[in-house]
Amino acid sequence: MRYLMTIAYDGSHYSGYQKQPRMVTIQGELEKVLTKINSEKKVTVSASGRTDAGVHAYGQRAHFDLKKDWDLYKLQGSLNSLLPKDIYVRRIEKVADDFHARFDVQAKEYIYKLNMGEYNPLEKDYVYQYNEPLKVVEMERALKYLEGTHNFQSFTKADEEKEDYVRTILETRIVRDKKDINQITISITGSGFLRYMVRNIVGFLIEVGEGKRKSQDILTVLEAQDRTQAGITAPACGLYLNQVFY
Amino acid sequence: MRYLMTIAYDGSHYSGYQKQPRMVTIQGELEKVLTKINSEKKVTVSASGRTDAGVHAYGQRAHFDLKKDWDLYKLQGSLNSLLPKDIYVRRIEKVADDFHARFDVQAKEYIYKLNMGEYNPLEKDYVYQYNEPLKVVEMERALKYLEGTHNFQSFTKADEEKEDYVRTILETRIVRDKKDINQITISITGSGFLRYMVRNIVGFLIEVGEGKRKSQDILTVLEAQDRTQAGITAPACGLYLNQVFY
Repeated sequence: MRYLMTIAYDGSHYSGYQKQPRMVTIQGELEKVLTKINSEKKVTVSASGRTDAGVHAYGQRAHFDLKKDWDLYKLQGSLNSLLPKDIYVRRIEKVADDFHARFDVQAKEYIYKLNMGEYNPLEKDYVYQYNEPLKVVEMERALKYLEGTHNFQSFTKADEEKEDYVRTILETRIVRDKKDINQITISITGSGFLRYMVRNIVGFLIEVGEGKRKSQDILTVLEAQDRTQAGITAPACGLYLNQVFY
Repeated sequence: MRYLMTIAYDGSHYSGYQKQPRMVTIQGELEKVLTKINSEKKVTVSASGRTDAGVHAYGQRAHFDLKKDWDLYKLQGSLNSLLPKDIYVRRIEKVADDFHARFDVQAKEYIYKLNMGEYNPLEKDYVYQYNEPLKVVEMERALKYLEGTHNFQSFTKADEEKEDYVRTILETRIVRDKKDINQITISITGSGFLRYMVRNIVGFLIEVGEGKRKSQDILTVLEAQDRTQAGITAPACGLYLNQVFY
């Protein structure tokens, strides 16, 4: 029986999503708990993709197989009672045996939270505290150039070797918080993402917001297909995997 | 020279505001840093009042004395560069030598954040995750009965011995978040508060919201002047010292 779960987690205290020896990871915690409720028979969890250390999720998705045909409500309750308080299973559904949480992804939405106002010690792990005003309209203009299909080699991890750096961005926007106009959320929905891609795009947008680059410079950077052209990598704490679409 | 500072802090990892031997406290961190910039001559910090372990602040106020006539911007910068990232000095001003951050308080506003929706692992230390619907209109009705001057012995710490349990509540309200109607913020402004008073009031309001008590029952509980009449103490993580008025 194959199950698909939707997971929210606070990535602050984890060495990323993916299991690694001697590290505390989201996948490691999920597999430990699932193996426990599976009478200690090893369960493997396959997520839609990894998230790096310090990155959060509201809507990560992952599948796993159990022999038993569980009542979904009971299964969810059992998992949540055993998981650490900073990982939460929001929903579980049954899926076909050939469903795959990574290979079947249609699109993903990442959001990036940035505070242009006063430093807030209560959000140090949850928002990038830039703490200075930025030209948000210019940033959104630059972001819009990314919609469509492009080679994103300039925006991936410098030493990332891939056969194919072409990805399609379906939708982008920047939303200002209604209560606090200094809080912005950058949203990027795409059919796929390269490693560090969102954080490197945000790093570039910040340089646009600072007036160091023009919005249309993003086209030159894309064309260069060279990581050194794009600029900084924005910190992990502002990034959230918000939704995965199948 | 007497200085008054406005401080925000994340109380999650502290044993409360007030200094205690062998405990990590907000006051302890502030005094350590101030003593350091005062050439290691001991500086004492006097706050508007203590906050308990796990309670947060956006607008705690505290005064201290330094021999040197500091540039305020520089002083603020020095403190923030030395303080842990979960304590932040938002503002410093100079005040008269006889000003006292505790004795001169005119009023304080506490807010209490409660989530009636789905559990959110990203806010586990910042909101009371009740995760069930509550009758908010009834809760607000009960809260409104508290405005004015009353004996609050039923709402303080059970073993708290005080000469005077009479306090004046100036303003109360419950606000629903516009983006997420399951998030409510209870605000109570008063001339003074007893220990655990806000958390015990919130505990009572929750019982009203659950339908276990009627809103007007709060009058009977006030009259009883007996802690055992009021009910539970709401958890610390939802409570914030929001503002202090002089």
